[in-house]
Amino acid sequence: MSGRFSVTYHVRGSAAEIEARARGIAVEQSVEMPVAAIRDQTVLSEIVGRVERIEDLGDGVFAVDIGLAVATVGDDAGQLLNMVFGNTSLHDDVVLADIAIPDSLVRLFGGPRHGIAGLRARLGVPRRALTASALKPQGLASGGLAALAAQMARGGLDFIKDDHGLADQSYARFAERVRACAAAVGREVRASGHPTRYVPSLSGNLDQLRVQAGLALDLGLDCVLVAPMICGLATLQALVREFPGLAWLAHPSMGGVGRIAPELLIGKLFPLLGADAVIFPSFGGRFGYSRRTCGGLAENARRGGGMRAALPVAAGGMTLDRTGEILDFYGPDTMLLIGGNLLMAGERISVEAARFVGAVSGHVFE
Amino acid sequence: MSGRFSVTYHVRGSAAEIEARARGIAVEQSVEMPVAAIRDQTVLSEIVGRVERIEDLGDGVFAVDIGLAVATVGDDAGQLLNMVFGNTSLHDDVVLADIAIPDSLVRLFGGPRHGIAGLRARLGVPRRALTASALKPQGLASGGLAALAAQMARGGLDFIKDDHGLADQSYARFAERVRACAAAVGREVRASGHPTRYVPSLSGNLDQLRVQAGLALDLGLDCVLVAPMICGLATLQALVREFPGLAWLAHPSMGGVGRIAPELLIGKLFPLLGADAVIFPSFGGRFGYSRRTCGGLAENARRGGGMRAALPVAAGGMTLDRTGEILDFYGPDTMLLIGGNLLMAGERISVEAARFVGAVSGHVFE
Repeated sequence: MSGRFSVTYHVRGSAAEIEARARGIAVEQSVEMPVAAIRDQTVLSEIVGRVERIEDLGDGVFAVDIGLAVATVGDDAGQLLNMVFGNTSLHDDVVLADIAIPDSLVRLFGGPRHGIAGLRARLGVPRRALTASALKPQGLASGGLAALAAQMARGGLDFIKDDHGLADQSYARFAERVRACAAAVGREVRASGHPTRYVPSLSGNLDQLRVQAGLALDLGLDCVLVAPMICGLATLQALVREFPGLAWLAHPSMGGVGRIAPELLIGKLFPLLGADAVIFPSFGGRFGYSRRTCGGLAENARRGGGMRAALPVAAGGMTLDRTGEILDFYGPDTMLLIGGNLLMAGERISVEAARFVGAVSGHVFE
Repeated sequence: MSGRFSVTYHVRGSAAEIEARARGIAVEQSVEMPVAAIRDQTVLSEIVGRVERIEDLGDGVFAVDIGLAVATVGDDAGQLLNMVFGNTSLHDDVVLADIAIPDSLVRLFGGPRHGIAGLRARLGVPRRALTASALKPQGLASGGLAALAAQMARGGLDFIKDDHGLADQSYARFAERVRACAAAVGREVRASGHPTRYVPSLSGNLDQLRVQAGLALDLGLDCVLVAPMICGLATLQALVREFPGLAWLAHPSMGGVGRIAPELLIGKLFPLLGADAVIFPSFGGRFGYSRRTCGGLAENARRGGGMRAALPVAAGGMTLDRTGEILDFYGPDTMLLIGGNLLMAGERISVEAARFVGAVSGHVFE
């Protein structure tokens, strides 16, 4: 745990002031005090952040690389976020653009335990893109959600995940709901032979998440969903270590826009901590991420860099009629998640799900 | 847990499109699917978010009030954040501006367990503003930090908190560091009679935080610091419940700028979950919050609204020469935290700390 790692910030400012501003960030994200008041030579040489590069990106934006000491991270994912963006997140002229994650942190956090290969193996689908839909709306009782899950499974989807709004509410308690949905999907799997995975959404604090993950395991499930920016990165880190048999899908809730580049937060950091698949709002839906952002995010997730490849999951208002376009853009190492658009089919949802599965299976890449 | 609570978003857009956009947010933050595809009458009447008000604020910004169902929050603080801003945090035209926190959520989460009155009682300081400084830089060994803590305590400060960068790093392990600093401050307190509080910064996952909070209690400490946006709101919720004897200071790390109004996040939500004091970057330092934002944040923290009042802690580049101005702005129910500016005094830090204490004690409000 020695040496430095490089963090890239995009800073709005003027050429005349950028050097001072860069030094300000280097101090804020390391010792957070006037360097002139530091007497300790080791702190001065090893701990104080260092400006490594300033590049004018045009339009009043500069890329600033700061070298931070790996030792300041300790072995905690929360502290990693604290060190790379904690106080600087309070400055509105700075975006956290990228981190060159060093091997020491890859070894420490471990990356995806299953990744694309592990998810494909669960489904017995070696090559084609993967399909998913979401159980909604919240407010339905467990029986209604389970019935919907069965209908979706009948269409042959690969993954059926809980909406991230499904938690442990009075109208559908986690344990009851997950039991019912797991049983419903299990029945369809036995009938169809296609090993559709039901993916419950876990929520709450570490104690509660642990109980929920344990219940998922007890029910024979092997994939779960969690929102790392809601539960905290340290919580994800702990869960992934404690439940290595589960594949972890990361939901982007509270991922923000613009202040942390999605390519970094969702594409790199969630996988670093063990997310096997990362859900993100794709271009072409109801969110505003550009093609370039989405492409970069998917590429980061798959690239690994000493880690297993994580599966990018394009979501957020995807529609069946755009399946071909979306798949051509992302390629086959992708999961396409269509939620609301499938749900519009009402009673015909199994047929519509099967049409979705057929479109993905039959897609011939450009 | 029935009924709705009102969430205010500030949305950039045009008058022609704001109604549709408002309905879009109401759906995104509740059922997250096409309303036309929902058959369940209870979901339609009780769960789907409702646009309650749209007000043109000028300059292309609209205030939109959405009524969300209290039932969707369950009893989890993470889920509260998920419901009020989870997916909408991914839309860059929306700022989460405010929440009218209903009594049911105040009862559920409980608010500050000690608040301003409890913190004042610990110090035996009924009226004047409170003083604090921060132990820095990280990278120092435990002995160096403890020596600094002793020097600061000798000046008569009320609170000496760890820098939020101090975690459980190899160069100063949490247990060793906190023991050393607690002992050093304890010796000064016995000598001076002024009950200075040493406030360790806790970090990691819930298991680790629990061990750290337990150690703090064992050492006779009764105030701790945590960063809710790093550890997760559900984690703070659990800690406050489990350690009701500790007073909890909230650090704003990863609090972002602009996407969640600081008046809400730091001024209302952290106290709702039990933060007794909230640290924030005040105007007049090295961060950009306006006077208006800072004033609103402090007012929200103190107002309580069925909860105990939480103590606003003005920080982030405060200097001794501005003590009078800052105190006149915030009034006496305030803690002023001066870190780096005191540390510039080097060996003279006890004298400088005493000067700070004298300036606050002797301040005559305008």
